[in-house]
Amino acid sequence: MTLRIALSAGEPAGIGPELLALLAERGAGGQQLVYVGDPGVIEAGARAVRRSIQLLRFDPTYTGVMPPKSLYYVPLSLQAENEFGFLRLANAPYVLNVLSRAAAGCISGEFDAMVTAPLQKSVINEAGIAFSGHTEFLQQIAGIQSVVMLLAAPQLRVALATTHLPLRAVADALSAERLRRVLLTLEAGMRDQFGIQRPRIAVLGLNPHAGEGGHLGREEIEIMIPVLEELRASGMELLGPWPADTAFVADRRAQADVYLAMYHDQGLPVLKTQAFGEAVNVTLGLPFIRTSVDHGTALDIAGKALARPESLFAAVDLALKLAENRKR
Amino acid sequence: MTLRIALSAGEPAGIGPELLALLAERGAGGQQLVYVGDPGVIEAGARAVRRSIQLLRFDPTYTGVMPPKSLYYVPLSLQAENEFGFLRLANAPYVLNVLSRAAAGCISGEFDAMVTAPLQKSVINEAGIAFSGHTEFLQQIAGIQSVVMLLAAPQLRVALATTHLPLRAVADALSAERLRRVLLTLEAGMRDQFGIQRPRIAVLGLNPHAGEGGHLGREEIEIMIPVLEELRASGMELLGPWPADTAFVADRRAQADVYLAMYHDQGLPVLKTQAFGEAVNVTLGLPFIRTSVDHGTALDIAGKALARPESLFAAVDLALKLAENRKR
Repeated sequence: MTLRIALSAGEPAGIGPELLALLAERGAGGQQLVYVGDPGVIEAGARAVRRSIQLLRFDPTYTGVMPPKSLYYVPLSLQAENEFGFLRLANAPYVLNVLSRAAAGCISGEFDAMVTAPLQKSVINEAGIAFSGHTEFLQQIAGIQSVVMLLAAPQLRVALATTHLPLRAVADALSAERLRRVLLTLEAGMRDQFGIQRPRIAVLGLNPHAGEGGHLGREEIEIMIPVLEELRASGMELLGPWPADTAFVADRRAQADVYLAMYHDQGLPVLKTQAFGEAVNVTLGLPFIRTSVDHGTALDIAGKALARPESLFAAVDLALKLAENRKR
Repeated sequence: MTLRIALSAGEPAGIGPELLALLAERGAGGQQLVYVGDPGVIEAGARAVRRSIQLLRFDPTYTGVMPPKSLYYVPLSLQAENEFGFLRLANAPYVLNVLSRAAAGCISGEFDAMVTAPLQKSVINEAGIAFSGHTEFLQQIAGIQSVVMLLAAPQLRVALATTHLPLRAVADALSAERLRRVLLTLEAGMRDQFGIQRPRIAVLGLNPHAGEGGHLGREEIEIMIPVLEELRASGMELLGPWPADTAFVADRRAQADVYLAMYHDQGLPVLKTQAFGEAVNVTLGLPFIRTSVDHGTALDIAGKALARPESLFAAVDLALKLAENRKR
């Protein structure tokens, strides 16, 4: 039986539509690619990149392979006309409807995973909708307490204990409860989605030199090490807290299946430097598989056939792999 | 005329002495390597790595090339017997005397640069001496207000606006005054020591996504951008503030001669991952050139011929290059 990936084009005025057209052309080895949204958006994307692809109405009863150079679609309608590079407040609710429909299908089992192209947070907020990002929106739909953001590249995986916070808020946000929750979610995700039965998780210290025995901060001693000890006692394979600066050298990397950085700029510069364009954003902790590209809407080049599809391809390929792991 | 590099073996019970013996064997293309300290320490290091080297009394009137497999020495005496792997409080003042003597020679022009092997901060503190690191000690001797820590590898250079602080103290430490001072010191150092007349300095934002227009922190808007504008107006070539996560990808890297990270774990993980063993610690802002290895005393393997000398070799080679630039 083939797998089915639900696709969101994200912000219709961005580069998502043309990337989806390029994806349709490439295909996914016969697995079903199901676009959720307005067919006209993808048709415009295909024209922009001068590709000829077929849009076929999604038929949930058909479980065979997909024809080449095509996308299935589940129709949802834009509110206002779409023009590449120009944000329209009127289309903000549409973007969220797409996500809701795709998520519902993932939860019901209609789809095996969801892959999302970038959306534009600001236009949704300006449309008067409280919205802080894909991850939080999907978390709410699924009614889940804790999700974990993981960036996965072939050679390196980095998860974050805190995500989009001002630097001065990070230390206070790192409670023992949060660290415990994140580690449990991360371990479950590595097992259930990545198929690693006993993942080796390398935890980075919050402070430089992992606090140097308390001389450079006490969070390692007071918060981190007690949580790690407790979870080790329950059978988890945890390394660290490691000093971040030397944590990613080759012989350390061989010891770990995944890193947990305490904050955004501690873990992601190494990952994006080593694996730019290959990194895929994975949300762990949801009741379904969700991956995402690792770039923004790039409004300035939208519709100009300049956007590179590697990150979307990688997100689709990883979603398929995780879905296979899960079916086993 | 040959150049003269003053060498400190750092903690005599650590790996410094055997690394200096390996350096003596390798030589520095005839340039003068002048060890400051107890000759017995190096003799023990040479025995540990089974190398036969010559220790020759330093003669300041001789300006020719150095014979192969030798070190000049300026004698200073240990207080207590040295044994690899065992810290002796009694030798703590000796370690600082070595640094003072080498610094005095650099200031007077007797030496062209200083290269330091690692010392053990804790044993100096336990000996009752207030001491927070090489950099601060040399800064005090030289009577200098502001120094900047730079890690330099062949392919990447990263300087730090704040160094060894707990993460929660970083945001408050980043004042406009500090940022201005650090940028001026960094620019002067790149010019005078690295020979780059108009260095392009890429400044990383303090917050993730460089604050995302104020949504993820306001230090970029309130502190950083005004300082950058002011210094640009005075002719400096400053890039940023750039989001740290994507700052080190290839096409950004081609735009910058040096990065300024706002704190330790924002800049050093990328540098040490890309250039482990090749990175050299350079102190900018001193009235002389000082480079240092990028590792610790490694007491557990000291005297066992296991330590790798690449970092010391790189520190010596870079010191020679910077000294040449300065003489021009």
